[in-house]
Amino acid sequence: MAGDAGRRKEAGEKGLTHLDEKGRARMVDVSSKKVTERTAVAQASIKMGRSTLDLILNAGIKKGDVLAVAQVAGIMAAKRTSELIPMCHPISITSVNMDFQVDEENSTITATVTAKTMDRTGIEMEALTGAAVAALTIYDMCKGVDRSMTITGIKLLAKAGGRSGTYLRTD
Amino acid sequence: MAGDAGRRKEAGEKGLTHLDEKGRARMVDVSSKKVTERTAVAQASIKMGRSTLDLILNAGIKKGDVLAVAQVAGIMAAKRTSELIPMCHPISITSVNMDFQVDEENSTITATVTAKTMDRTGIEMEALTGAAVAALTIYDMCKGVDRSMTITGIKLLAKAGGRSGTYLRTD
Amino acid sequence: MAGDAGRRKEAGEKGLTHLDEKGRARMVDVSSKKVTERTAVAQASIKMGRSTLDLILNAGIKKGDVLAVAQVAGIMAAKRTSELIPMCHPISITSVNMDFQVDEENSTITATVTAKTMDRTGIEMEALTGAAVAALTIYDMCKGVDRSMTITGIKLLAKAGGRSGTYLRTD
Amino acid sequence: MAGDAGRRKEAGEKGLTHLDEKGRARMVDVSSKKVTERTAVAQASIKMGRSTLDLILNAGIKKGDVLAVAQVAGIMAAKRTSELIPMCHPISITSVNMDFQVDEENSTITATVTAKTMDRTGIEMEALTGAAVAALTIYDMCKGVDRSMTITGIKLLAKAGGRSGTYLRTD
Amino acid sequence: MAGDAGRRKEAGEKGLTHLDEKGRARMVDVSSKKVTERTAVAQASIKMGRSTLDLILNAGIKKGDVLAVAQVAGIMAAKRTSELIPMCHPISITSVNMDFQVDEENSTITATVTAKTMDRTGIEMEALTGAAVAALTIYDMCKGVDRSMTITGIKLLAKAGGRSGTYLRTD
Amino acid sequence: MAGDAGRRKEAGEKGLTHLDEKGRARMVDVSSKKVTERTAVAQASIKMGRSTLDLILNAGIKKGDVLAVAQVAGIMAAKRTSELIPMCHPISITSVNMDFQVDEENSTITATVTAKTMDRTGIEMEALTGAAVAALTIYDMCKGVDRSMTITGIKLLAKAGGRSGTYLRTD
Repeated sequence: MAGDAGRRKEAGEKGLTHLDEKGRARMVDVSSKKVTERTAVAQASIKMGRSTLDLILNAGIKKGDVLAVAQVAGIMAAKRTSELIPMCHPISITSVNMDFQVDEENSTITATVTAKTMDRTGIEMEALTGAAVAALTIYDMCKGVDRSMTITGIKLLAKAGGRSGTYLRTD
Repeated sequence: MAGDAGRRKEAGEKGLTHLDEKGRARMVDVSSKKVTERTAVAQASIKMGRSTLDLILNAGIKKGDVLAVAQVAGIMAAKRTSELIPMCHPISITSVNMDFQVDEENSTITATVTAKTMDRTGIEMEALTGAAVAALTIYDMCKGVDRSMTITGIKLLAKAGGRSGTYLRTD
Repeated sequence: MAGDAGRRKEAGEKGLTHLDEKGRARMVDVSSKKVTERTAVAQASIKMGRSTLDLILNAGIKKGDVLAVAQVAGIMAAKRTSELIPMCHPISITSVNMDFQVDEENSTITATVTAKTMDRTGIEMEALTGAAVAALTIYDMCKGVDRSMTITGIKLLAKAGGRSGTYLRTD
Repeated sequence: MAGDAGRRKEAGEKGLTHLDEKGRARMVDVSSKKVTERTAVAQASIKMGRSTLDLILNAGIKKGDVLAVAQVAGIMAAKRTSELIPMCHPISITSVNMDFQVDEENSTITATVTAKTMDRTGIEMEALTGAAVAALTIYDMCKGVDRSMTITGIKLLAKAGGRSGTYLRTD
Repeated sequence: MAGDAGRRKEAGEKGLTHLDEKGRARMVDVSSKKVTERTAVAQASIKMGRSTLDLILNAGIKKGDVLAVAQVAGIMAAKRTSELIPMCHPISITSVNMDFQVDEENSTITATVTAKTMDRTGIEMEALTGAAVAALTIYDMCKGVDRSMTITGIKLLAKAGGRSGTYLRTD
Repeated sequence: MAGDAGRRKEAGEKGLTHLDEKGRARMVDVSSKKVTERTAVAQASIKMGRSTLDLILNAGIKKGDVLAVAQVAGIMAAKRTSELIPMCHPISITSVNMDFQVDEENSTITATVTAKTMDRTGIEMEALTGAAVAALTIYDMCKGVDRSMTITGIKLLAKAGGRSGTYLRTD
């Protein structure tokens, strides 16, 4: 038991800040942090069959309505991040922007989300959630022809602002 | 223009059922489909640093509270799928179950969700959304120590029930 | 007082079914009604300056992204009707479809929503809410150039199915 | 193609700020705008049969419970504007107030909403959404006796605060 | 460890059905249960200072607007039960009705909610949640004059329908 | 009538601030209040049969998964307070923390929630709502074995910050 307590204490010290000293979840206190501009860039990819990609690209005009729907879904989901992720703070989102990159060679679409806030914490989870839901929406729109699509590579590319400073993914 | 119309028509025929003949999004009509039991199994994985995995496994007792929070988040998110995915029908979810597999060798946690419905459509997106949000929650709980975690392998493993019959992923 | 009670009783008899005999709101009991296919068609129009309409029509390609966003917003709002309208029942929506008609002469865009359910009640409010939110979204997308737009003509065009039978608006 | 790009560029310049240079939707960046008090007044009217209006006015005591329910619905909907309107920012709403005007001669009820925020953007859409949902709620409460009601005149009456200054509707 | 497993197994056998054999939460599978009419009656009370009760009773006309707002809030909250209570199934609510009893002697208001569903499970939590939120709303409306109010006696009075049959609270 | 108006005016003066001079509900204007740190502590208790308490305590390891689920539910509900309580302002929640106290003698579990905000109003309702939903979740998880549980003692223990200053419950 002492060992467990020790490990839990260590967890807290090293940064599982959403767990208290008893190992229980909590929404960490950010009251004393400063309101600053915070930016995060995240992405999610979805790999599909070649013929599925062709349908998406040709279904509408110029990348078509599948991506238009996915983009709206991702932006709206970013705004609901604190409802979905239990320990996330509700924050003042000041911008969400989404771009799609089509990699025809690998039959993959990648959604890149840039999100900003003027608040005491954030905004990585909003960017990640927006990208993930955009990819899930592409899956939904195309699952009638291709159930084997795989969503992959949901990751934070960069983060700026806030006490922990700038993060740039290097792989 | 005729070419575009042709390709869009083809898209509809081949199954981008959420697009109408003009290439516009719609929630497809399932009124005439039968209420049957439908089951889907989906998963999402999150790869992390070895020390992050150790913190999760040891933070609480026996896989700890990070996974308990992620599990609740995933189950709750599955219930909100039709709010997040624009063309998804609201359906009568009858069961959601989530398991975590820890692969210590690859420093990866995989959430597997089994979801059921008694309805006219579904339940793939609910299973996929539940798994994705569980993985995002793990990211949120651990991002203080590891921003380089990557969520990967969000995919449908199996589906049973409904007109399109059984699907079993083979890769 | 007797007069008030009398008038309230009369209100109930004549069909303000969401008020009980005391004049208080309630969600009326539909338990004994049959599950049948119910369809409703509703619309909403938005009148704007001619130059605003030109911007919408030309901003993207072929009616552009303003309408694509409005369409997704309207479909998603239809699914949330029972959260917005206090006495509305949550129902099993089986289809939502939206079309836009552009009246260049009157500088007006009209959203027409067709919604279906297989349930014990509905689906007028879902169609009306979807149309209203599509129009509000057009307002939001264009308010930077035109604050004087007016949303008008939100009305039920037709209804079929259910005990009260078919309704066809005649004006 | 060059023509399309040109028109899209023009759209951006003239103020369809929710579209980027490619004509795609985005939530515009308000990070650098100042937190100021912003006020908006909007209204929505619903025209109905004379006997319907009588039922509303007499169902309860002094304008009755139909309007009480509509008022609560409108205030609650104003708070959910950013969930409904895709490119709307979540903002810090500091006040929502609603009044009803009954025009017995034209058998019309008008809901007027005044909303305030202390934030970097807003608050027109919140006022408009609140008024629209109040009118939709009146429709719902009375549709059992009158399906031909029409919601009309949803418009912004005035706006104050923020970079774009004061707006006063003149028609 | 064996002891823990044994106790958890026992828990499952005796009815903590939302926990699986490993002690983890799940949304239990109700797919094979029959769609039947299910009714639940629940209540919540709020005790307050005598002068607070007087303000509520006199603020409007005949029990006033505090109770009108609380009633709408409770009915709307009942519809959102499955979003709030993690392991609750989303169900087809067919009726929600709320009454207030004023006990002037004990300076207490009691909200009694009757809720119905035609589904495979439910409807206790919906009735309980509706009553609880009605009481919380009364607290909110009056907290400016009385912070010492206490909500008490949130309980299920009766339940009918479903495999477990009728329940009638006897204390 | 003059008497009613008088009493309503009195109500406003004495603090039913969510009612305007006509006795109608409104979301009070907090625009001119200062952003300060505000803290509230609230609790809710649930009394159950002794054997039910034993199942909870032993179902998992060390107070088990029933409480883990209740804790996540309560924290998430606190964030949704302004969606549930009609006249509550959406605020910037900066911290939510929940503890459970088990009183084996009285077979009662008490959830204590401490919530913080940096905003112009709040945070009592968030703390109360979080505690109430945690208790409702415990009810849901255990209702299969014990329908007679009673939730009781939902009350504000303390409040600090804001114009009205510090409140400490004394009973």
